[in-house]
Amino acid sequence: MRWLIGEDGGAPTFCMRRFELEPGGHTPHHGHEWEHGVYVLEGRGTVYSGDNGAPLRTADVVYIPPGEVHHFEAGPDGPARFLWLIPESGK
Amino acid sequence: MRWLIGEDGGAPTFCMRRFELEPGGHTPHHGHEWEHGVYVLEGRGTVYSGDNGAPLRTADVVYIPPGEVHHFEAGPDGPARFLWLIPESGK
Repeated sequence: MRWLIGEDGGAPTFCMRRFELEPGGHTPHHGHEWEHGVYVLEGRGTVYSGDNGAPLRTADVVYIPPGEVHHFEAGPDGPARFLWLIPESGK
Repeated sequence: MRWLIGEDGGAPTFCMRRFELEPGGHTPHHGHEWEHGVYVLEGRGTVYSGDNGAPLRTADVVYIPPGEVHHFEAGPDGPARFLWLIPESGK
């Protein structure tokens, strides 16, 4: 995971990170009070909201509203790379 | 230009748009009170802050602080595509 904008607190509103999941890897299934904006830079995978999964591929965009329990999973064929946006308040 | 997140006001903190500049095209040279976060999805170009230009290429990230006068220009060889982040307050 690499911070692109906002690591040092210099950006007042939102932060940008690049995030990679290894093939089959996933993020924790969790919720939080801030929203996510996610852009799929490369690869395939699935985003889960509760028990419901939706496929993801390059150039897809996901918006996770505040409080929604979710996780991201990479497909088996290669890593998945995401651009990850969160508000400064969720850092 | 295509809204990806936030057009309808549903995202509380920030908005995401996809933006394309034709070869040689550029955005207005302007400043505003909100910040930009920009990710170069594809192509080459230049970002100007005042009279100073810096080259851009695929996967580069630009942070424009609030108030900084700037513009983006696509190179001559093809369109440039950007992911454009602004706070909800700048919409």
